[in-house]
Amino acid sequence: MRDVIEESLREYLPEQQSSAARLLDAMTYSLLGGGKRLRPTLLLMTARACGLPIERVLPAACAVEMIHTYSLIHDDLPAMDNDDYRRGKLTNHKQFDEATAILAGDALLTLAFETILLSDLDAQTNMSLVRELSFASGARGMVAGQMLDLLAEGQSITDEQLAKIHAKKTGALLRASVRMGALAAGVDQPTLHALTIYAESIGLAFQIQDDILDVTGDKALLGKQTGGDVVLQKATYPARYGVSGARERVKELTEHAVDALKKPDLSLEPNVLIEMAYLLTERVF
Amino acid sequence: MRDVIEESLREYLPEQQSSAARLLDAMTYSLLGGGKRLRPTLLLMTARACGLPIERVLPAACAVEMIHTYSLIHDDLPAMDNDDYRRGKLTNHKQFDEATAILAGDALLTLAFETILLSDLDAQTNMSLVRELSFASGARGMVAGQMLDLLAEGQSITDEQLAKIHAKKTGALLRASVRMGALAAGVDQPTLHALTIYAESIGLAFQIQDDILDVTGDKALLGKQTGGDVVLQKATYPARYGVSGARERVKELTEHAVDALKKPDLSLEPNVLIEMAYLLTERVF
Repeated sequence: MRDVIEESLREYLPEQQSSAARLLDAMTYSLLGGGKRLRPTLLLMTARACGLPIERVLPAACAVEMIHTYSLIHDDLPAMDNDDYRRGKLTNHKQFDEATAILAGDALLTLAFETILLSDLDAQTNMSLVRELSFASGARGMVAGQMLDLLAEGQSITDEQLAKIHAKKTGALLRASVRMGALAAGVDQPTLHALTIYAESIGLAFQIQDDILDVTGDKALLGKQTGGDVVLQKATYPARYGVSGARERVKELTEHAVDALKKPDLSLEPNVLIEMAYLLTERVF
Repeated sequence: MRDVIEESLREYLPEQQSSAARLLDAMTYSLLGGGKRLRPTLLLMTARACGLPIERVLPAACAVEMIHTYSLIHDDLPAMDNDDYRRGKLTNHKQFDEATAILAGDALLTLAFETILLSDLDAQTNMSLVRELSFASGARGMVAGQMLDLLAEGQSITDEQLAKIHAKKTGALLRASVRMGALAAGVDQPTLHALTIYAESIGLAFQIQDDILDVTGDKALLGKQTGGDVVLQKATYPARYGVSGARERVKELTEHAVDALKKPDLSLEPNVLIEMAYLLTERVF
């Protein structure tokens, strides 16, 4: 699945002559610069689990990865998290410059919405995917999460506020990835509901795992500096409940995700998604 | 038409509780902070000229203004044009801060694509509007234009390169505004073609006019510092052909735009669009 995602991402980038070479270089640098491809993988696996051939939603899967990539480029900027390395390489603004990085992010964000429309689905369904992705990644979702996260630095916040930041900052796009696969396949409401619970649970588990790895992880494996959350006084689960408390929470959330898919009468084949949920708890980068 | 645009822009912003207050404040500050509303006006006037009630495309018109507003916020950033004032008010990053301005731009860009879908049109047509706006504003259009413009600062460039920068940086979105109105109305190919020529011509005239005003304009009327292009050694028509040569070019382009709409057998009522073309040549801000 990984190979077909990489190939498709390359395919959906604009042709050289229609753009500015430096802009396209910067977009390509980050979009094809490695990464787990978790979000497109989740979208494609969900589509397949719901009976839709993945070829029909490759564009939508790539769109989600474009949104994720743009968010990393902008989050790394000096005015934001000010990171020099990402995935073991220089961040976009370090490799190019700030102006180019801002524009490359803007262009990837814009490209996502025209790329979705290349999916082999009827117009109504394509529209529902555009709506889902926009809601999840904009002022009601990911961008709001990043804003709240920046505002929370060095502040004391409640458990509820921390959960809200997580749900928006990383949760919303992971949730949308799963839901877009389900919407594309045209599943019934109970199945969509179960998959939404699944997605929200693994989304939060994933974020907690990320925070744990920031404390315990291997810099070389992660391809970035660790310990940054402590320096920035970021609100995290490990800071609040300790590493073992955070690990316990990851386990609970994963079980919750799996249970949602084991409900009877759902119109999906859940095994691969269940396996994925367990795999995510074991990741080391 | 102005009032209904202002009202609609306010309506399509997310509700306070679904977002982060500071993010929404920054989005609102720039989106509702004045502006000529040229792009949405062109879209609505074109729709009406082609027989479509403007109520049905107000969301699409607002989407175009959201894209325009995000581009101004990002272009004003210190890493880009580094402007302190815009429309007589502090720029977004001066009023808030850089991180907030980057996020407010990202959120407006994202919001544009879900807002289009609120247009009262069939799904196929809505998809064509999403595609048109994305092409015009992304790596093939406006963002590429901004990149090329930044790269051209202090460089000697050819007439052809200057035309390409103009066509992408401001031309593409003006062109899309007119074409989206026409696509929404479902016009025939000859009419779409004529409107495209009209849009390209007034788009270039508009940009040249902007450059003239940067030399001759009144800072108070314009609401921003003038003379910036000279300081940044920007390639402009007045720098190349003098102010009177540039004015001559604006006149030619306007005539070309008007002639395109006077062709026989077009399915539109061109008078308001023709009037608009002439009005634009007389603007002082």
